[in-house]
Amino acid sequence: MPLSAGLKTGKVKSMIDICLFGAGFIGSVHAANLARNPRARFRYIVDPRPEVAARIAAQYGAEAVDTQRALNDPAIRGVIIASATKTHADLSIAAAQKGKAIFCEKPIDMDIGRTDQCLAAVAEAGVIFQIGFNRRFDPSFRSLKQRLDAGEIGAVEQVIITSRDPEPETEEAVAGGGGVFREMTIHDFDMARNLLGEEPVEIFATGSCLVLPYYGKLGDYDTAMFILRTASGRQCHINNSVRAVYGYDQRIEVHGSNGMLRAANRTPTSVELSNGTAISTDKPLYFFTERYQESYAAELDHFLDCIEKGERPVVGADDGRKAMILCEAALASAKSGRFEPIRL
Amino acid sequence: MPLSAGLKTGKVKSMIDICLFGAGFIGSVHAANLARNPRARFRYIVDPRPEVAARIAAQYGAEAVDTQRALNDPAIRGVIIASATKTHADLSIAAAQKGKAIFCEKPIDMDIGRTDQCLAAVAEAGVIFQIGFNRRFDPSFRSLKQRLDAGEIGAVEQVIITSRDPEPETEEAVAGGGGVFREMTIHDFDMARNLLGEEPVEIFATGSCLVLPYYGKLGDYDTAMFILRTASGRQCHINNSVRAVYGYDQRIEVHGSNGMLRAANRTPTSVELSNGTAISTDKPLYFFTERYQESYAAELDHFLDCIEKGERPVVGADDGRKAMILCEAALASAKSGRFEPIRL
Amino acid sequence: MPLSAGLKTGKVKSMIDICLFGAGFIGSVHAANLARNPRARFRYIVDPRPEVAARIAAQYGAEAVDTQRALNDPAIRGVIIASATKTHADLSIAAAQKGKAIFCEKPIDMDIGRTDQCLAAVAEAGVIFQIGFNRRFDPSFRSLKQRLDAGEIGAVEQVIITSRDPEPETEEAVAGGGGVFREMTIHDFDMARNLLGEEPVEIFATGSCLVLPYYGKLGDYDTAMFILRTASGRQCHINNSVRAVYGYDQRIEVHGSNGMLRAANRTPTSVELSNGTAISTDKPLYFFTERYQESYAAELDHFLDCIEKGERPVVGADDGRKAMILCEAALASAKSGRFEPIRL
Amino acid sequence: MPLSAGLKTGKVKSMIDICLFGAGFIGSVHAANLARNPRARFRYIVDPRPEVAARIAAQYGAEAVDTQRALNDPAIRGVIIASATKTHADLSIAAAQKGKAIFCEKPIDMDIGRTDQCLAAVAEAGVIFQIGFNRRFDPSFRSLKQRLDAGEIGAVEQVIITSRDPEPETEEAVAGGGGVFREMTIHDFDMARNLLGEEPVEIFATGSCLVLPYYGKLGDYDTAMFILRTASGRQCHINNSVRAVYGYDQRIEVHGSNGMLRAANRTPTSVELSNGTAISTDKPLYFFTERYQESYAAELDHFLDCIEKGERPVVGADDGRKAMILCEAALASAKSGRFEPIRL
Repeated sequence: MPLSAGLKTGKVKSMIDICLFGAGFIGSVHAANLARNPRARFRYIVDPRPEVAARIAAQYGAEAVDTQRALNDPAIRGVIIASATKTHADLSIAAAQKGKAIFCEKPIDMDIGRTDQCLAAVAEAGVIFQIGFNRRFDPSFRSLKQRLDAGEIGAVEQVIITSRDPEPETEEAVAGGGGVFREMTIHDFDMARNLLGEEPVEIFATGSCLVLPYYGKLGDYDTAMFILRTASGRQCHINNSVRAVYGYDQRIEVHGSNGMLRAANRTPTSVELSNGTAISTDKPLYFFTERYQESYAAELDHFLDCIEKGERPVVGADDGRKAMILCEAALASAKSGRFEPIRL
Repeated sequence: MPLSAGLKTGKVKSMIDICLFGAGFIGSVHAANLARNPRARFRYIVDPRPEVAARIAAQYGAEAVDTQRALNDPAIRGVIIASATKTHADLSIAAAQKGKAIFCEKPIDMDIGRTDQCLAAVAEAGVIFQIGFNRRFDPSFRSLKQRLDAGEIGAVEQVIITSRDPEPETEEAVAGGGGVFREMTIHDFDMARNLLGEEPVEIFATGSCLVLPYYGKLGDYDTAMFILRTASGRQCHINNSVRAVYGYDQRIEVHGSNGMLRAANRTPTSVELSNGTAISTDKPLYFFTERYQESYAAELDHFLDCIEKGERPVVGADDGRKAMILCEAALASAKSGRFEPIRL
Repeated sequence: MPLSAGLKTGKVKSMIDICLFGAGFIGSVHAANLARNPRARFRYIVDPRPEVAARIAAQYGAEAVDTQRALNDPAIRGVIIASATKTHADLSIAAAQKGKAIFCEKPIDMDIGRTDQCLAAVAEAGVIFQIGFNRRFDPSFRSLKQRLDAGEIGAVEQVIITSRDPEPETEEAVAGGGGVFREMTIHDFDMARNLLGEEPVEIFATGSCLVLPYYGKLGDYDTAMFILRTASGRQCHINNSVRAVYGYDQRIEVHGSNGMLRAANRTPTSVELSNGTAISTDKPLYFFTERYQESYAAELDHFLDCIEKGERPVVGADDGRKAMILCEAALASAKSGRFEPIRL
Repeated sequence: MPLSAGLKTGKVKSMIDICLFGAGFIGSVHAANLARNPRARFRYIVDPRPEVAARIAAQYGAEAVDTQRALNDPAIRGVIIASATKTHADLSIAAAQKGKAIFCEKPIDMDIGRTDQCLAAVAEAGVIFQIGFNRRFDPSFRSLKQRLDAGEIGAVEQVIITSRDPEPETEEAVAGGGGVFREMTIHDFDMARNLLGEEPVEIFATGSCLVLPYYGKLGDYDTAMFILRTASGRQCHINNSVRAVYGYDQRIEVHGSNGMLRAANRTPTSVELSNGTAISTDKPLYFFTERYQESYAAELDHFLDCIEKGERPVVGADDGRKAMILCEAALASAKSGRFEPIRL
């Protein structure tokens, strides 16, 4: 009896119809969160691979359609763009023109010019645009940020961001991707901007190939360090590696005039073993789907909030653009060996 | 359009229809988990207070009905009994006679004789019966238990259970309840049995009134310590208080021949502040709805698993009965000042 | 040129001449601390085994003499009694009669009557008497006690003492000793009295033989749990084992009306390893010479302070006597299975 | 009776006579360790301020003499140079020419040319020369290094050094000193070299004035970050501040191909308070005399070991020189804004 199932959330009238673009890994994460969220109705899934789209559609009771059908349905109030990076700008522009609220995975585009075109279209349409910097919604990072803003440690002086993946990408993924700065460090750049309290104006980067030769062969880095600096002299260090055998290492440390705020890793359980060898605890949560599970759900909630209230997302198109500019400056610095200006 | 909402889970055919008895605090917890669980369909809510039942029904798209209607509906495969303690046995017997799988909050009944009648009815009907010892499903405690069973610390020698509530009950609740041993320590008794690897045969208890005079005035204790002992000499200590101002204190420590396994408290975030005074971290999660959020969802999942597979729950009627016998022996010991036998 | 060596401490005039009785294990600990302490001059060592005495004497520039010679030397202001337990009372009485300040290892005597005779002689002589409950001087336990006394957690309600040795005694030592309650738990009983803020009036004890059969064969226990209770209803739990394979486990937890104070174990280093298996840190410091190294030095300092200032030690003869009475009551309870009164 | 005092250590024959140059702060630390060390005899103190020298001499039974007298005494086997930086090279050369073993505080000299002259004299004389990089002897850092060398985390990839003082220098000290890189970071540069497993070949530095304006006015920095890089691409980050209000922050983190080794701060006690606000523990040990107390004693022990065995110190003249070269390159980078070569 579909009726009672339909009533399951008891909020039929206020549910927000959403179309999801992209049935890949990150698309699946959003699909699951859409299904669990009582305010969202997961209506459409769009993916160029019909069988993949059909599987997701069947799993969550959505309908696999094409872009036209999805964007032309006036019931659709928001779109989640989790498709291939090269489609982000086009889909954003098309959705903006149809007046849909947009949640777009980062980056908007690998090209700054194309990014700017996209942002102009969004601005002209006046639609909500949220970029997928999910870490802003991590409970620990968000709490740290709130306490920082509340003045618990005074003025920010230095930020240290540790960001290390548990496993490298395959050679194919590295070859097809935008490089580790644009794929991985981009999140750290956004976090640096979020925490420094001032825009960075210079960046120094150095990258090595110590983990897997194909990173180097493909002109990429698997191990990197960065220093960012703001106009007043605040500093931020980021360290990256594509392989932390103990699990996803995502830590933040902010030093201010009156103290330090740190966010440590999270573990699956609080169990500790003491034996004849050592005292040992769980490794950190394995990777982003585990560590940032709550943050993916929370960013969706924020998107729905913004749609309901007509408000601007806390992390928007401009944040996506600025993080990309940081990537470009970092790439230049890794080659030049000097502080490169960041022209936001 | 209710249809797509109905299809939201994509599993209409395999959903398990559930009736919930009780719209009070713990009933609300189960209601929310039923709503979020893709395998369950929350069909009916039964509560003697029509307006409370109606509110829960509206919130989750269930229907507020009476006991007869609910138990006579052949579509209902399982019932969750979260109503007043004195109704547990009657509802369990009625549900068993209708062939429903039963999830019953502890205790089955305050009276052992009535408990035995209930268990006999359940046994005769051959239905699934799961008792609500949710802590067995806490990720940390479950991991500890699995590692203990895997032999990581050899044979168990001593168990130490810390179990302290963040806030006392009101005087009304204490007056109307079964006493702190039967309401609170009962969970620790179940955990002691779960971890000792042998049934306890003797128990010593001592209780004081140090927190709020009305506990003592009502013949109850607000502060208590226990020692349990098995036939081979394994020992378990439990300490209880109705007030831990820093939050819900739920820790376990098991000492074996080859080491110790501990489960510490969990905190909302991993943020740490270092300032001129101290290094400080979050307090533990506040109370059972926060700390055991995952365990309530997991015990429901286990109940649904047992229904689907026709299996026996890992924590059943007999566990509920034995924990009550431990309560009775503890009450006797607190009065006699001596080891009292536990006649399981 | 001995002169400059003699001047090494630059405090020749104010040095306090000390005689040490006992060149066994604990005597050696005191000998080393005497040698390092700039206020003490380690003059005499007395031990029935001439070669052992001579070795210690040579190592630290002391002189091996007999009891008469040592006690008759008016230069000797203090004695440290670290000889066999059965000699403690006689040596204390003899030293008291010569007006020496006395530092005596626990217990004063296995017999309460003999203990009382000793205390009477000490009282009559009016000499300083400090008992070797070194844990009172452990930096962490002392800090906890000070903060407790400063009211940081309000009124004490429950105390939990974890006290587990890293390795059992040999069968010979068990056969020749006073039993685990009098040898090991006695320290915990002193700590319980120190922290409860009121004298305990009742004790419950249960002991098992789970580690090594010879403990049981010799009528002793290798695994034990205790509950103590004060007149106002404050409670203390102690757990003991003679084998904690991960090292000396010495923890304290005090629950008060406004919070909890805990003292955790100490580790040799702060190094943490994260690898593909776990996050692991050092085991606790191995045993009492490591964990209580600072406390042995500090109790000697306190003894010298008391001699210099003519003050009463914070832990005196009466504390030694009361801890022994607790041992006796615990032994009675382990046999009777009931709360036994503590007649201090 | 000086004789027994002289015999206090029982090792008169094997004691090593030492002369200490400098009765300032760090000189006092060495004086106290000399007095406590059973293998050393603290014979002479040399300081241009007679009353200061006399006070130290009286306190520890040493003799205040002039440089000539001290270096001409053939009984003196080793000298500890803890005087003003500008005297280090002259005293080292003079002591070397007299065949004394030399322990010299860092830096050897602010000028590399003068440093090289000093090293040449030391090499020609063939005497032992140990530089005062005490952190190599910190128990936690030493354990980390040993475990790194033992291969516990595979090949080193990145090193992160956190080094923050609890309080800034006075304006006078900043004006009179060599700058924060040469006074403070120099220890971190030595640690970087110690841990990277390869010599760094490039360094990037950036400094700010965020804490106290006089640092900037005097051309110095109070807040700085560094990145070092070896030929194979290993990387090291250092962050410095002259003010960590929570105490001396001295942490190390090494990432290797198979894991991470970290050394955390140490605290005075293991006491933890849980109350209605937070869970809080001790701040780190306050400053270098507290945190590195064991390392100062251990570096002296190592110096005595080297004298006794005629061995080369693990941290010698060349380490002092290389750390200074790193300081110079860092200063250049902070001005140029680019990776500067390190010409060791």
